[in-house]
Amino acid sequence: MIYVDNAATSFPKPECVYRAIEECMRYYCANPGRGGHYYARLSSKIVMKARDALSRLFNIDDPMRICITKNATEGLNIAIKGLLKPGDHVIISSMEHNAVTRPVKTLEKEIGIKVTIIKGNDRGEIDPEDFRKSIAVNTKLIICTSASNVNGLIMPIEQIGEIARECEIPFLVDASQGAGYIDIDVEKMHIDMMALPGHKGLYGPQGTGALYIKKGLNINTLMQGGTGSNSEEVYQPGIMPDMFESGTLNTPGIAGLAAGIRFIESYGLANIRTKKYSLVKRLTDALSDIEGVKLYNPYEMDANCGIVAFNIEGIDSAELSSILDRDFSIAARGGLHCAPFAHKTLGTLNSGILRISPGCFNTTQDMDEIADAVKTVCRKLHFM
Amino acid sequence: MIYVDNAATSFPKPECVYRAIEECMRYYCANPGRGGHYYARLSSKIVMKARDALSRLFNIDDPMRICITKNATEGLNIAIKGLLKPGDHVIISSMEHNAVTRPVKTLEKEIGIKVTIIKGNDRGEIDPEDFRKSIAVNTKLIICTSASNVNGLIMPIEQIGEIARECEIPFLVDASQGAGYIDIDVEKMHIDMMALPGHKGLYGPQGTGALYIKKGLNINTLMQGGTGSNSEEVYQPGIMPDMFESGTLNTPGIAGLAAGIRFIESYGLANIRTKKYSLVKRLTDALSDIEGVKLYNPYEMDANCGIVAFNIEGIDSAELSSILDRDFSIAARGGLHCAPFAHKTLGTLNSGILRISPGCFNTTQDMDEIADAVKTVCRKLHFM
Repeated sequence: MIYVDNAATSFPKPECVYRAIEECMRYYCANPGRGGHYYARLSSKIVMKARDALSRLFNIDDPMRICITKNATEGLNIAIKGLLKPGDHVIISSMEHNAVTRPVKTLEKEIGIKVTIIKGNDRGEIDPEDFRKSIAVNTKLIICTSASNVNGLIMPIEQIGEIARECEIPFLVDASQGAGYIDIDVEKMHIDMMALPGHKGLYGPQGTGALYIKKGLNINTLMQGGTGSNSEEVYQPGIMPDMFESGTLNTPGIAGLAAGIRFIESYGLANIRTKKYSLVKRLTDALSDIEGVKLYNPYEMDANCGIVAFNIEGIDSAELSSILDRDFSIAARGGLHCAPFAHKTLGTLNSGILRISPGCFNTTQDMDEIADAVKTVCRKLHFM
Repeated sequence: MIYVDNAATSFPKPECVYRAIEECMRYYCANPGRGGHYYARLSSKIVMKARDALSRLFNIDDPMRICITKNATEGLNIAIKGLLKPGDHVIISSMEHNAVTRPVKTLEKEIGIKVTIIKGNDRGEIDPEDFRKSIAVNTKLIICTSASNVNGLIMPIEQIGEIARECEIPFLVDASQGAGYIDIDVEKMHIDMMALPGHKGLYGPQGTGALYIKKGLNINTLMQGGTGSNSEEVYQPGIMPDMFESGTLNTPGIAGLAAGIRFIESYGLANIRTKKYSLVKRLTDALSDIEGVKLYNPYEMDANCGIVAFNIEGIDSAELSSILDRDFSIAARGGLHCAPFAHKTLGTLNSGILRISPGCFNTTQDMDEIADAVKTVCRKLHFM
């Protein structure tokens, strides 16, 4: 199997990730932050290591501003619902995933917020100044993905962040596709909140994620429960990060996430990026030469977070994905990728897109095999 | 280390659980329910296996009524907040964990619901008829834990369920302590919703849990996002279980949970219960003979879900827990166990309780060592 669905979940993981999970599970997995016994302390320690690793990677000054979540979706829901109140206005881009658009549209319907969607051009590109132009007196939040999960386009986060900072509006970034690829610096990019998954570019297992909340930002909790702190209180304590981490954390998953980030640090973020981009470039170049193939991903390294997005004329992307799986053992992803507005922007709402998202363990040979498979499919279609 | 904090997280796990997680992580871990490639299908299959296993264990007729959550706390928050509206009345017991009391008290403060807490006697025992007496025209939910996480008392779930069914009020059970010990049958016990953790009595890893929602019950979603279904919709689809499972699921964790339930099925729930109870009985008997020890747990198997709860006169439970850890390598849990109302009921809000919760891999020798340790501590205290 050639697995090129890393934009969904990175696979395989670095060996150290498997080992960290196994070690935690077999030798010390108790409840972090609850009880003071040795295993509980070891569990707390590994959670703290993960927070430290995340804070190093994204230049977050205080690791305790990082809340552990089960995935990016949870982080986005906490941030969006914890901040917006009836009558508030939020600005998002048209390249957002349903993890942003659905919570925002639900609030619009249920509590009466206003939503402005900044539309990108047919490549998905957005003018940061369009965010500024849409700011109103009741604008309480700006949200943008760090990169599109459909065509890999890297978004102008820093420029949007500058505008948000100038206008004193909190800026929330969905780093689902960017984390582990783009060099995200929350200070430099003026990011006030950032939700991210552990299981994509950070090489942790599924069931992990994080939400960064800048100091001074008051966010209501989405869930309440046991926090291991102020247990006698009937209301959720206001302590970070406990207040957003009710219930038992996924300690073995977090151990894996910490190991994944250590892998990034030892391999080097720039090296991962160069490696991934070399694969993206090789495949993009090969596909460009095939008649009937239409490409949607940006070509340059600065603009692409590691995705090749294309369609073959005359075939639905979901069907193409099935053929690649069945006949060529290629695990890619067709359809809408839970991002209908992005597809509308790119003009692919009906066809979807075939997405190839290589990981840092893929090879140039994998890319060549994919190009050959696409060639074969095109040839067959032509003769049908 | 003698680990007896299984009421927090079961440890160690059966060997098959470690292997199922490892196998998933190394060989096929992709996104269940997204994309149609081989690894995604294998991932979907293991999630379905876990749903099937859960439905067998609790006599749930439709596995698709089981939503995968990250822990019991998430399930409880979804159920409570998805059902209750301003002006509604909810009845809970005084033995609930903060995972029930905090969401309920937060709704009381924030949207104006009414909360009635049915107080147990000084052993925590509750008269089911007290629930009936508290029912009003606006009562929209009854919640009860299946067993106390403080002293192990098994609650009269079936009788409360009958009252709820008679009065046509939805009944939510927090099965955090009962699942994997009590023979819970949602039909027989008239349970409409049930939240449970995967990482306690079901032997799955942390980061897993489930919420059962009976057919016909309309629950609003707490989070929205990508579901892999109806991706073109800007609102959350109304499909079960997708609507409560936004974002990537914890596939390796779920694989571990499925394996944990298979372990229960092969070992036999009744055998697990007998084994655990024999340990509880042995320790309870031994502690009863020690002067200065006060016991809080029920003695009989039918009444105790597998916990020995006690204090030593003249020493705080948290301090005792530290001594047991430091001087005797015993991992137990002191303090309030995130259940202040339960401690208030038992009269232990100031001292807390030292909780010993053996797992099915503990031995009678472990219990004897704990009893000896307690004896030593008592002797020292006496001479001090």
